[in-house]
Amino acid sequence: MHVTPEQEAEIEAQRQETFSTRRSTSPGLEEILYQVIPVLDHGFIRVVDYMGDDSAVVQAARVSYGRGTKAVRGDAGLINYLLRHRHTTPFEMAEIKYHVKLPIFVARQWIRHRTASVNEYSARYSILDNEFYLPAAEDLAAQSTVNRQGRGETLTGDEAARVYELLRRDAEQSYADYQEMLNEDDGGEPLDPGRQGLARELARMNLSLNFYTQWYWKTDLHNLMHFLSLRADEHAQFEIRIYAEAMLETMKRWVPQTYDAFVNYRHGGAHLSSKGLAAVKRLIAGEDVSQAGSGMSKREWSELMEMLGREG
Amino acid sequence: MHVTPEQEAEIEAQRQETFSTRRSTSPGLEEILYQVIPVLDHGFIRVVDYMGDDSAVVQAARVSYGRGTKAVRGDAGLINYLLRHRHTTPFEMAEIKYHVKLPIFVARQWIRHRTASVNEYSARYSILDNEFYLPAAEDLAAQSTVNRQGRGETLTGDEAARVYELLRRDAEQSYADYQEMLNEDDGGEPLDPGRQGLARELARMNLSLNFYTQWYWKTDLHNLMHFLSLRADEHAQFEIRIYAEAMLETMKRWVPQTYDAFVNYRHGGAHLSSKGLAAVKRLIAGEDVSQAGSGMSKREWSELMEMLGREG
Amino acid sequence: MHVTPEQEAEIEAQRQETFSTRRSTSPGLEEILYQVIPVLDHGFIRVVDYMGDDSAVVQAARVSYGRGTKAVRGDAGLINYLLRHRHTTPFEMAEIKYHVKLPIFVARQWIRHRTASVNEYSARYSILDNEFYLPAAEDLAAQSTVNRQGRGETLTGDEAARVYELLRRDAEQSYADYQEMLNEDDGGEPLDPGRQGLARELARMNLSLNFYTQWYWKTDLHNLMHFLSLRADEHAQFEIRIYAEAMLETMKRWVPQTYDAFVNYRHGGAHLSSKGLAAVKRLIAGEDVSQAGSGMSKREWSELMEMLGREG
Amino acid sequence: MHVTPEQEAEIEAQRQETFSTRRSTSPGLEEILYQVIPVLDHGFIRVVDYMGDDSAVVQAARVSYGRGTKAVRGDAGLINYLLRHRHTTPFEMAEIKYHVKLPIFVARQWIRHRTASVNEYSARYSILDNEFYLPAAEDLAAQSTVNRQGRGETLTGDEAARVYELLRRDAEQSYADYQEMLNEDDGGEPLDPGRQGLARELARMNLSLNFYTQWYWKTDLHNLMHFLSLRADEHAQFEIRIYAEAMLETMKRWVPQTYDAFVNYRHGGAHLSSKGLAAVKRLIAGEDVSQAGSGMSKREWSELMEMLGREG
Repeated sequence: MHVTPEQEAEIEAQRQETFSTRRSTSPGLEEILYQVIPVLDHGFIRVVDYMGDDSAVVQAARVSYGRGTKAVRGDAGLINYLLRHRHTTPFEMAEIKYHVKLPIFVARQWIRHRTASVNEYSARYSILDNEFYLPAAEDLAAQSTVNRQGRGETLTGDEAARVYELLRRDAEQSYADYQEMLNEDDGGEPLDPGRQGLARELARMNLSLNFYTQWYWKTDLHNLMHFLSLRADEHAQFEIRIYAEAMLETMKRWVPQTYDAFVNYRHGGAHLSSKGLAAVKRLIAGEDVSQAGSGMSKREWSELMEMLGREG
Repeated sequence: MHVTPEQEAEIEAQRQETFSTRRSTSPGLEEILYQVIPVLDHGFIRVVDYMGDDSAVVQAARVSYGRGTKAVRGDAGLINYLLRHRHTTPFEMAEIKYHVKLPIFVARQWIRHRTASVNEYSARYSILDNEFYLPAAEDLAAQSTVNRQGRGETLTGDEAARVYELLRRDAEQSYADYQEMLNEDDGGEPLDPGRQGLARELARMNLSLNFYTQWYWKTDLHNLMHFLSLRADEHAQFEIRIYAEAMLETMKRWVPQTYDAFVNYRHGGAHLSSKGLAAVKRLIAGEDVSQAGSGMSKREWSELMEMLGREG
Repeated sequence: MHVTPEQEAEIEAQRQETFSTRRSTSPGLEEILYQVIPVLDHGFIRVVDYMGDDSAVVQAARVSYGRGTKAVRGDAGLINYLLRHRHTTPFEMAEIKYHVKLPIFVARQWIRHRTASVNEYSARYSILDNEFYLPAAEDLAAQSTVNRQGRGETLTGDEAARVYELLRRDAEQSYADYQEMLNEDDGGEPLDPGRQGLARELARMNLSLNFYTQWYWKTDLHNLMHFLSLRADEHAQFEIRIYAEAMLETMKRWVPQTYDAFVNYRHGGAHLSSKGLAAVKRLIAGEDVSQAGSGMSKREWSELMEMLGREG
Repeated sequence: MHVTPEQEAEIEAQRQETFSTRRSTSPGLEEILYQVIPVLDHGFIRVVDYMGDDSAVVQAARVSYGRGTKAVRGDAGLINYLLRHRHTTPFEMAEIKYHVKLPIFVARQWIRHRTASVNEYSARYSILDNEFYLPAAEDLAAQSTVNRQGRGETLTGDEAARVYELLRRDAEQSYADYQEMLNEDDGGEPLDPGRQGLARELARMNLSLNFYTQWYWKTDLHNLMHFLSLRADEHAQFEIRIYAEAMLETMKRWVPQTYDAFVNYRHGGAHLSSKGLAAVKRLIAGEDVSQAGSGMSKREWSELMEMLGREG
């Protein structure tokens, strides 16, 4: 379950209220503000606040007195220019805040992005819910045999069934024992009035890394794009990538011009090394370039060939 | 002149537009949004955007699903608690953006606060205006004789007149020569069609540090309070303190509960060292404590006595 | 086991090598460089590199050309002054790097300090060892009845025994199943040649938060002191505080003058709110001040009385 | 003059002292440690401390117990891999500290890099020296007619002579008046015992932006590379680029393997947008691609043609 009916009602009540503001608004983002966007089996993202839109980037770049935007086309051109030439500071001028529910092992990867603000639900103070992540059948992958840090084929048959069985059993057991150690039932009542119950800050250590946590996470548009360029990338682990992909959709609603520029220059772009650039020039000139003659390692060469859509 | 009539008109036009939003708004801050608040002879601050209000702090601390606030009193109590116990992350969840016009030597102090986003008017790209700071008569201070990094009495008479004369003459000369080197008059026309004009990125070096620049500056509430605790402090140089004091007023409008807590715990609070705390305990117990017996240096002792409102 | 004999041998081999350098060295820290300092049942900290010592703070504050230090006494006085007046930037000029082995739930608190550099052992790439934290008998605490975020008395008797039993059993089970899902035995051989094995990046989610991880963690002296002031504090959870206390000892060896100043001004110091300062002044004047007359909340008043060593 | 004889003597004295350390050392960097590397007419950089070398990157990536390096070739391969795949955190594990003397207008660009530590010479506390930057004849450039943020041809003849005359005259005048306002001569004696002298924090505002300041500046290898990729770039203003180029040489001495990787992947590399990559693929396939058919703007197309060494 992604949210309880009570939480859903709280969210809906908040969506009903509107206010008058002199600030720039992003109509596309207002439409989905506060709404739960489900991710994985129990997780979600939802945008809970934002500041600025595409015009905030343009205004800051121009240090404007008024609205500061010109024709839509001129603004888009400026945004393209800024992104292409790595003038990143104007993109720091727009800000977005998410409420995210995610498995702890995903949270541990996510938190490595330090240029963001975070408030996480405290398991020192409160008791975590009995919700843990179990991969969907198609996401239950074998270890890759070519990449130590990646996945291979999907597991099937008995092996898949056994893995499910183990993941579910261990998570259920660890939660049941968490409750027993806390000496609290689901309603917060003591299981055994004669016991004191282990401190919450200690009992939580019994939970496994697939349990869900949640946090408020706030960052600016520049750092959001950096996060997305790494985490919506095919090399990212599936379980964080699917969050990044959902956030990419919210970015499209929020700042459509910056989104287009991002997709063109970053997300869909590619980087050439000095040796790679030399090889590309020779290929364009019609030369027959081989890995041996390129000065590049085999791995690097195959990465280049893949980027160019050629056979190595 | 703080802004030109054209700039004033742009600002007013922006103030006339209002939008509907689902986001939290701060009515006190909306009232003055975009308005110029004059500082020094030609400078200003104006709030150009914000995200969140006191409730954003409370929501993040509670990782709420809905509006997340309780009774006003409960919220204020939580904000007090968070600030008192240095739980600073919830204060990062509200954001504010200023447009600031300020002398370059003030900008050089200001920029040392790194946890903020900045877009400054570019003198590589554009030509700076002919506006420079001259202290008001009462702010023209002599070097302090007791504090190498501070001011003493106000200069008067011939010495004051002479200082004014020098500051004005040199600034005017440097601007006239800046224009001559650029080979541009006030209207952007060449002064001499036969000359090329020095590159802007070079010509600017002839301007003195009292010329005005401007920037968009954005930070979160936690880092704003850190800035204000250092810069609205009596040890800060007057020319930056007066900006900080104007910002303190905008903070009061924006987040009144956090403002009250800030004034009580930080701005009006005091720090005791281990030795200072020991001395205070003895003083409360009615003992007669002297500097010699306190283990503190003379300077430290006199700082403590000043904090306690006692003669050293 | 804190380290294996092979790791111990690697460390010893590294300790045997010395080099000649023109850089400042800290003799006290060189003595213990690379050595394992055990923390908790399997964890440790060890200092693996550093840059600068007390003199780096002094040199930077003076922007010196040469060694830049004066008499030892003058340096200590400057360091005291800088720390007392929150001139924090010179303390950023010395740097220290630790190798830390710690339970995952401790790592999750630790990582919230963002102004540091971190490289963590990757469980996407490698397989974690079978080592998990079990509290010592005296650290197995009940939930506090007065502080939702704290510990009460130590559990004893049957309840303690049962908690141990559950923590150990669940951790052992989760590791056994981790290995089964990976399809690897302790030597890295397949348990069952007919199975593919679950991807490492997925299997790790079955481990509980008391399993040990490790990382390289690097920060500067200013941010180290901030970390220590929060984590070597009595409000910090015991399992992170004991790491902070071990680090405090390394700081004492590294920068003895800064350490003394830190203990006096920060670690052993106290903060007074505006209302708290007013109350202290009245107490020193011999007035009878009560909570009701202080303008402070009950909780705040009792915190002040505790700081002053008085009964509330 | 880059340094005074007294400063030179202090530096030499410090270079004579050597210490024994267990830390990794960089022999190439030790050779030039503390030495002044002149930049511009009075400026310099000098490396005053460092932590780690190439092996620090490798150790952190491997979370090693001992020295952690393998064959030189294996280490270089790992460093190449890390840089190519944007695994940037291991590069944060090595640190370098510079003492830099630079014109204030250059310092204002430099300080925009926020992920560094800085201690600047204080003109509130001390008096600046009478040293200002005058461009060499070949660096006195006209405003570019094609790029609003750039330089065109070198000025010559009467115009060059006039610019020199103005820059020199105004700087000399502003310094003379700075001294008069301070009421101090070169030896620190009052010019007129009957005057108080203007506060230093005010008098400094009369100096122009070409006066030299100096600071200690410390950053890690990752952020150094980011700084160098932007500031040793041809789009950077000459006066900061020449500092970056001097620093690039120190980087080569310090971490030769990382330097090689940096030159190949970043400094000499290039970025392709999604549309640019599509155009490259078509060019390699022998198609005749034009700007109109590429979906790229004219400016973007000409940038791509320049990168590929083709006529637009």
